[in-house]
Amino acid sequence: MVNERYNRFKSNRQGTRPNYGTSRPKQHSSVGRVAAPSESNEPKLKIIPLGGQEEVGRNMTVFEYGQDIVILDIGMQFAEEDMPGIDYIIPDIRYLRGKERNIKGVILSHGHLDHIGAVPHILPQLGWPPVYASKMTLALVKRRLEESHLQQHLKSYEIKSANENLRFGNIKVNVFDVTHSIMDAIGVIIQTPVANIIHPGDWRYDLDPVTGKPTDFSHLARWNTKPIPSILMMESLGSTKEGHQISELDIFRTIKQVFEKTQGRIIIATFASMVERVSWIVSVAEQLGKKVALDGYSMKLNMEIAKKIGYAKFKSSTLIDIKRIRDYPDNKVVVVCTGAQGEDRAVLMRIANGEHRSIKLQKNDTVIFSSSVIPGNERSIQRLKDSLYRQCDNVIHKEIMDVHGGGHALIEDIKLLLRQVKPKYLLPVYANHYLLKECAKVAMSIGFPPQNISILDNGSIGEMTHQGFKISEQKIPIEYVFVDGLGVGDISHVVLRDRQILSADGMLVIVATIDGKTGALVGSPDIISRGFVYMKNNRLIEETRHKIKQILKGQNKQQLTDEMYIKDKIRNDIGQFLFTKIERRPMILPLLIQV
Amino acid sequence: MVNERYNRFKSNRQGTRPNYGTSRPKQHSSVGRVAAPSESNEPKLKIIPLGGQEEVGRNMTVFEYGQDIVILDIGMQFAEEDMPGIDYIIPDIRYLRGKERNIKGVILSHGHLDHIGAVPHILPQLGWPPVYASKMTLALVKRRLEESHLQQHLKSYEIKSANENLRFGNIKVNVFDVTHSIMDAIGVIIQTPVANIIHPGDWRYDLDPVTGKPTDFSHLARWNTKPIPSILMMESLGSTKEGHQISELDIFRTIKQVFEKTQGRIIIATFASMVERVSWIVSVAEQLGKKVALDGYSMKLNMEIAKKIGYAKFKSSTLIDIKRIRDYPDNKVVVVCTGAQGEDRAVLMRIANGEHRSIKLQKNDTVIFSSSVIPGNERSIQRLKDSLYRQCDNVIHKEIMDVHGGGHALIEDIKLLLRQVKPKYLLPVYANHYLLKECAKVAMSIGFPPQNISILDNGSIGEMTHQGFKISEQKIPIEYVFVDGLGVGDISHVVLRDRQILSADGMLVIVATIDGKTGALVGSPDIISRGFVYMKNNRLIEETRHKIKQILKGQNKQQLTDEMYIKDKIRNDIGQFLFTKIERRPMILPLLIQV
Repeated sequence: MVNERYNRFKSNRQGTRPNYGTSRPKQHSSVGRVAAPSESNEPKLKIIPLGGQEEVGRNMTVFEYGQDIVILDIGMQFAEEDMPGIDYIIPDIRYLRGKERNIKGVILSHGHLDHIGAVPHILPQLGWPPVYASKMTLALVKRRLEESHLQQHLKSYEIKSANENLRFGNIKVNVFDVTHSIMDAIGVIIQTPVANIIHPGDWRYDLDPVTGKPTDFSHLARWNTKPIPSILMMESLGSTKEGHQISELDIFRTIKQVFEKTQGRIIIATFASMVERVSWIVSVAEQLGKKVALDGYSMKLNMEIAKKIGYAKFKSSTLIDIKRIRDYPDNKVVVVCTGAQGEDRAVLMRIANGEHRSIKLQKNDTVIFSSSVIPGNERSIQRLKDSLYRQCDNVIHKEIMDVHGGGHALIEDIKLLLRQVKPKYLLPVYANHYLLKECAKVAMSIGFPPQNISILDNGSIGEMTHQGFKISEQKIPIEYVFVDGLGVGDISHVVLRDRQILSADGMLVIVATIDGKTGALVGSPDIISRGFVYMKNNRLIEETRHKIKQILKGQNKQQLTDEMYIKDKIRNDIGQFLFTKIERRPMILPLLIQV
Repeated sequence: MVNERYNRFKSNRQGTRPNYGTSRPKQHSSVGRVAAPSESNEPKLKIIPLGGQEEVGRNMTVFEYGQDIVILDIGMQFAEEDMPGIDYIIPDIRYLRGKERNIKGVILSHGHLDHIGAVPHILPQLGWPPVYASKMTLALVKRRLEESHLQQHLKSYEIKSANENLRFGNIKVNVFDVTHSIMDAIGVIIQTPVANIIHPGDWRYDLDPVTGKPTDFSHLARWNTKPIPSILMMESLGSTKEGHQISELDIFRTIKQVFEKTQGRIIIATFASMVERVSWIVSVAEQLGKKVALDGYSMKLNMEIAKKIGYAKFKSSTLIDIKRIRDYPDNKVVVVCTGAQGEDRAVLMRIANGEHRSIKLQKNDTVIFSSSVIPGNERSIQRLKDSLYRQCDNVIHKEIMDVHGGGHALIEDIKLLLRQVKPKYLLPVYANHYLLKECAKVAMSIGFPPQNISILDNGSIGEMTHQGFKISEQKIPIEYVFVDGLGVGDISHVVLRDRQILSADGMLVIVATIDGKTGALVGSPDIISRGFVYMKNNRLIEETRHKIKQILKGQNKQQLTDEMYIKDKIRNDIGQFLFTKIERRPMILPLLIQV
């Protein structure tokens, strides 16, 4: 493997480089440069990744040709660890303001929240353009809109088969089936007079599927023609991971083997969105005469939707209510639940903590994590595993058995896709910048011409004309739009910085009652602290009170009657005092009450 | 691989189980049960892991035989993400109170902070017992004590060779050389009349070292004798990772290859503690006629120490000051620095952000991350990589080339150690509980008898007598001892919870001036918020002010003069009001000022 990896490294060092645009992107810049006037009257095809801050284009991509706009996906990004209290982030759609009439349609590739989650926030702002998606995706979008009581506004069109031709003004769109970790995922072929864009969205190969035919994207090669070249937009999340993604059939076999050999109860935690896997888990249980209890709000809801639209095929009698599991012998019980990421109040955590109403863990239970670790959750999952290992003899996870495969393509999949689709141009997307560049290296390692690879940023404008593809010098300003509770976009960086300070060392409110005329201190200052030190009998608080008195005594009358001055003085001097004493920097809020 | 993994899974399901103690451990319990009186007069050998909360025994282990105590390591644990503002955690040593005279010595296995970091806090509390360690470890301990101006108290003994016999009352100790990611690591053989404990500390095999002989632990087999059996305490961090740890020679070869082929400057980020690796990086540079600039406080200090004690062998003229790198052609410059974990102010981050005084990144620079990702740092490292990939064509990391191997043993190493040492008993340690159990499974998979494996917790007492090994029913209460700035142990769970609340939704101070007699509101209440909503022109704050007035108006005179009641009322009603309005739960601090 080393040699092959080294060759990839070398292939990047031959002097040829992909096209990374002309200027270094500024993620937080608020001023875009104005582009030079267009050379011809033929409209350009513009490709603009708008959503997400680090994973380029994952949440939302705009395709614009003349007066026609088609949008792919309207998802949300989960908050990161330096954004305390933020629920999630939605795309910055300022670019679309004033262009609402041009938006001919929104296509949603699949039902994951990073692709549909911002629909309730953004569709209303865009004037409810029609939404095109497959059956499962539409069902999930409707559910998401119902949560905000907005479902009645939705104009939707269900894409029933890959053969449909959709028309959005001068843009035509065809779709194709894609394998991903959720059912009913589709890819799109965006057709314009200057290029055909092939975008599989999130994708993987399953060369060995549990049901259906192996993935084959060779049919997409026909979109690269002499007059109209094709542009492949390629998800690049797995571009540093060797090999092919593990086949779902392997996972199926491993889990089935565990089912056959296990004598006690089986508890499987997986992602609620893995509807297909949950379906075959239920089927396997059914074959072995076991009953299945689903637990977790989104897990149950997703399976209800899948059952309703005919995607989950098993007898209704196989499912039992979680409250009834004690009515069956241990070896007939399978529980499928959420919480494999160690989320605080999710089902698996409640089971582990002994707080679940119907499940008390037993030594002979088998607990399976059929999931991967989402970065940032490592520690929570370790603790959850510790707790489960203490209570059960059989805990199985990806580290020790193949009970999960991701929904994303790995290096060999990326190569195979390129070989099958044979595009003229390559735009790696849907990952951090560094992974896009690694995807470019993978492409170059199998001979893809570097000059035909371009790396976009969110807010970059990819421009396609008959002359070819280039990245515009103009860049659209993109900012984080934070959602916190019911507030959208009202959390500024100031508020976040305050939260970070508060969380690091807490805060101290100092209330000084002041004589309105002389500015002299009346009585003793009150101090309230939270998250700083434990207040009870704390000598430091007493010393701080004394220090405040000293500070105020040291001021002349003019200074004392200058409220701003006194507040600054208290903030700075007490801040310094506390840092010297205990090396902490709480937020200090001085309050002067005049009497 | 699947089959082998499955066999390991099955081997755990044959009905035989290791010894996990009699009661389910309670991590935060503060009351230990009292053990039954000892059966004989022969003293028991007690093994007590005291430090760390999740990784059993990693920070500190106590060995007690009669009136003699030997301590292995006094380290610190880094804070976790639900402990905002906490610098680190030190072992809870209440068990040793009153036993200070029995502590005959402290042995430090190697110089990493999780093994020596709590020395300045704990040695003074133990009355400065003598410290035994190898040259490099002692040098690092002295430096750590100097930071707290405590070095003059240290009584230290340098362990010069593996042949020394150390005596601590009735406990004898021999040491042996161990390969780890820091120089001069040692393992110990703790000898008592009832058992010989073999503890390699943190260890790995290097079957293909850059210099010196391949690791071989066969010589440890002789400590398992008929009258006195051996107990192997085995670090288990890698017990779910297949294969052998990658050899340092492979890393050496890969990095050397990069050095030889690279035309531009080379910037290598690694851990400051990897003194050996930094040494051979400098030597390779020297051979190729390149100059090396070290950057980063701890990197420079560690190399100074290594050079001083004769561990780093290269010409002094090979090292140049970072400020002078521009005096040399690019292809003669190597920078070795800290910051590979994406730490905010570390060297590599400053380079990436364009804030480094001497290094402005160039396209043809090669940046190497010779490091692993410490869980919790994934996102910061991704951002750092993004930033570097934007500026350089050649960024190399573990994902794409073998430029780092960890300091810990993997599954095949664990098996090899067991086969070489042939202990009677096995105690997996130095990892989360779940990994200790996986280590037990690995041992069972090669035929190690389950009844001779025991899993301890921090605070568990392993008891060895001539009758054999068992885990005592008594458990020592262990709590987190937090260090925050200069405060040690003064941060309670209340303070941490407050910090979590403050960080999630910020806070709101409500100051109401009240007529001392009637309790009626005087003027309009003041509201100060931080981390809640952006204050400027915020209508919500105005509405809140109005709501407070309403609340106070609705109270009768008796209620109004009851300060506690009014404060609770404001806290609850405004909390509810804000949640309805915006679904956030800031901390609310009502302040009543009587005039």
